[in-house]
Amino acid sequence: MSDPLQTLHALLDGTPIWQRTIKLKRGEPLVLPGTTDRNLYRVDHGILVSCREVAGSQQYMRFGYAGDYVMSLDSYITGQPTEYTLLALRRTEVAVASHTAHEAWLREHVEHTVAWEAGKGWLILGLMEREVDLLTASPEERYRRVLARSPRLFQEVPAKYIANYLRMTPETLSRLKKSG
Amino acid sequence: MSDPLQTLHALLDGTPIWQRTIKLKRGEPLVLPGTTDRNLYRVDHGILVSCREVAGSQQYMRFGYAGDYVMSLDSYITGQPTEYTLLALRRTEVAVASHTAHEAWLREHVEHTVAWEAGKGWLILGLMEREVDLLTASPEERYRRVLARSPRLFQEVPAKYIANYLRMTPETLSRLKKSG
Repeated sequence: MSDPLQTLHALLDGTPIWQRTIKLKRGEPLVLPGTTDRNLYRVDHGILVSCREVAGSQQYMRFGYAGDYVMSLDSYITGQPTEYTLLALRRTEVAVASHTAHEAWLREHVEHTVAWEAGKGWLILGLMEREVDLLTASPEERYRRVLARSPRLFQEVPAKYIANYLRMTPETLSRLKKSG
Repeated sequence: MSDPLQTLHALLDGTPIWQRTIKLKRGEPLVLPGTTDRNLYRVDHGILVSCREVAGSQQYMRFGYAGDYVMSLDSYITGQPTEYTLLALRRTEVAVASHTAHEAWLREHVEHTVAWEAGKGWLILGLMEREVDLLTASPEERYRRVLARSPRLFQEVPAKYIANYLRMTPETLSRLKKSG
């Protein structure tokens, strides 16, 4: 399978669907739970994180790095309010395409639909791998799986968020990195 | 959002893409890990389960009931061998559509693509909910979340598989069901 992200960049980036940019400070939310947001965002600088309260504590679910396309996924799909927060992990800039503009782009050419569907396939595979991560009881094995799949996580994200994402204490993560 | 499964039944079931049926005994595999299988299956009777070895033990990931469409999802998306087993949890009958026939059906009409994409959206939401399930540390809360979302699991699947799926001992599951 060719990289669906590269194909999407080639097809999407030069188009007029990107109507504005938003600059976010570190920790600033882009989308809050309870709001309906079907925009497509392209991260141009910085990092977005999707998080959600699970059993009383904030859980980090997905990270969007420079070059990634990010949505408030549940709201994008259902058209209903999201359960998730999207926020900037550091100073971040995103380009914004409205749902209407994005949908029109999708209908413009079958090649667009095909590329977008390949991206969705890639998302589904990622969610399936995340499921296996969470079913992997050993912190060391979990660490190795995610390191192999998502090296950027360890290069770009502060350790405390990685530890939360990996469901281990910062101390365990630090030990695993050293024994690396 | 209207039920994407109902729309797919209305559009897919009467078509000639269903070229044969397969009957499976209880415990019989339909797809084994290491094989490439891009067929679309429709469960007509019984239950299919998708499972995978995680850290040395078999984990049950997804159940397909009568009326559901099931694929060897990773293989369907990538065209590469699957990591998962699909097997019959009891005597099961499935209708089979080849990838080629299914793709031709998708291209036949934009309405088909739209319905299929709605199904994919529903799958993505399910995987996101599963992620939250697995991040929910309390067995009771996990049980309640899944019971609310998937009542058929508790009606149709033997308790030992539910316990495996919910990541709890059969004893804990039994206690939770009683305190219901």
